[in-house]
Amino acid sequence: MSVTYKLALCQMRSSMDKAESMEKAARYVKSAATGGASVVSLPEMWNCPYDNAYFREYAEGEDGPSVAFMADLARANGIYLIGGSIPELQEGRVYNTSYIFDPDGQLLKKHRKVHLFDIDVKGGVRFKESDTLSSGDSMTVVDTEFGKIGVAICYDIRFPEMFAAMTKAGAHLMLLPAAFNMTTGPAHWELLMRGRALDNQVYVAACSQARDVEARYRAYGHSLIANPWGELCGAAAANETVVFGDIDIAYMEQVRNEIPTKTQRRADIYSAAF
Amino acid sequence: MSVTYKLALCQMRSSMDKAESMEKAARYVKSAATGGASVVSLPEMWNCPYDNAYFREYAEGEDGPSVAFMADLARANGIYLIGGSIPELQEGRVYNTSYIFDPDGQLLKKHRKVHLFDIDVKGGVRFKESDTLSSGDSMTVVDTEFGKIGVAICYDIRFPEMFAAMTKAGAHLMLLPAAFNMTTGPAHWELLMRGRALDNQVYVAACSQARDVEARYRAYGHSLIANPWGELCGAAAANETVVFGDIDIAYMEQVRNEIPTKTQRRADIYSAAF
Repeated sequence: MSVTYKLALCQMRSSMDKAESMEKAARYVKSAATGGASVVSLPEMWNCPYDNAYFREYAEGEDGPSVAFMADLARANGIYLIGGSIPELQEGRVYNTSYIFDPDGQLLKKHRKVHLFDIDVKGGVRFKESDTLSSGDSMTVVDTEFGKIGVAICYDIRFPEMFAAMTKAGAHLMLLPAAFNMTTGPAHWELLMRGRALDNQVYVAACSQARDVEARYRAYGHSLIANPWGELCGAAAANETVVFGDIDIAYMEQVRNEIPTKTQRRADIYSAAF
Repeated sequence: MSVTYKLALCQMRSSMDKAESMEKAARYVKSAATGGASVVSLPEMWNCPYDNAYFREYAEGEDGPSVAFMADLARANGIYLIGGSIPELQEGRVYNTSYIFDPDGQLLKKHRKVHLFDIDVKGGVRFKESDTLSSGDSMTVVDTEFGKIGVAICYDIRFPEMFAAMTKAGAHLMLLPAAFNMTTGPAHWELLMRGRALDNQVYVAACSQARDVEARYRAYGHSLIANPWGELCGAAAANETVVFGDIDIAYMEQVRNEIPTKTQRRADIYSAAF
């Protein structure tokens, strides 16, 4: 079976004004679909400033306008939409949540960011999502007509075991709405994404916010798609743009046959440590 | 406790003549010790051509001349020696084995390469170590006065779980005698080593053979030391040389405090997959 399709990442900057962010998201997703993409992603917190001061204020329930808007976007453009993430309000708690829709606009699943971004780098970035956000409790793999896609959010990438588990669950593509910063972005962004792709012999795509030099939290940008050989097959700079890349499952199988780590693994030796 | 020490990697080319390889190894290890290194590594198969046609012919038992030679080298230079690897003959089987010595020349442990290098890349490298070699059955962590060091060999690096397990066992440095090639070297060498360092927040050092453009198997070279932030803190090109780097356990602890993935891990979510 030869499955190939085009993936697109909408590297947009969110606005203080939710209506403006929606207008922009609609424009970028349409551009992605017009460019031939069958699967399209928005970035992390696309409808909200990435700032603890705003997450609760911008949060919505599943019956809110942003989820309905994304469902419409998916249906109107006939694409699978990984809806970046938005602050989700449920029973008084706020989550960093990615909603995933099929081309009919049906909500397939949602992923709540599991690993909250709590870091404090000397002379660099300091952020504590857990001041305002609650964490998800499961990994997320969705079925599509192209095969299974794993969805995770930003800081989740630092936990290799989750990606190994999603690979074992059959995902051929890991899609991460994300927003690294000017400390960890230059140091780790590409290394983490390409490394996860190579280790698991899967595609990894990370859709960042574009950089806003006036924001308190400056996103690194550099949305990218890494292939199962660990190479980039699509990449942006820091500005607003759409990144396209071709996903080819036969190529993934070829890499897995060339370097057959899946069958060479010696779980008997190291599984006791987990 | 502030532990710092100097590590050196001897990027040498082995010869067809074992005595010549020994003479060269002695010279490089002495240069490393003179340069202030307390822990020194030789490359994979430093006393033998890296070629299935020669492994059995050059193989020796633990009572052979190469092990005695390495013990002498460690003692004479007052260093911990990670003795690269040599073909080890035991009960008719040949292993790709790294012997590790303390500064008194005592053999601490040996690591037999666990994951044999059997790959077949279209239009690139093809090699099948399992045609001649048998595989080891355990991971290897040795105690030193500087703390625990994990030892693995070359292709072992492609199995992240082994490095996670060695990290859990307390290793602060993963040392890999290795010899990547001109297909996987440019594509994967640095990505794998830096990625493993960043994911586990440990030092990773890979000691390659220097390149021999006339050999059937051309080593990539590029011996390197990656720090727990995922940066290179020592690196070679393809020629014969000694790479020095400083290992600083307080810096490792700082990185682990800045980005505390160790405590943020959600084993409850993904451990079921292993």
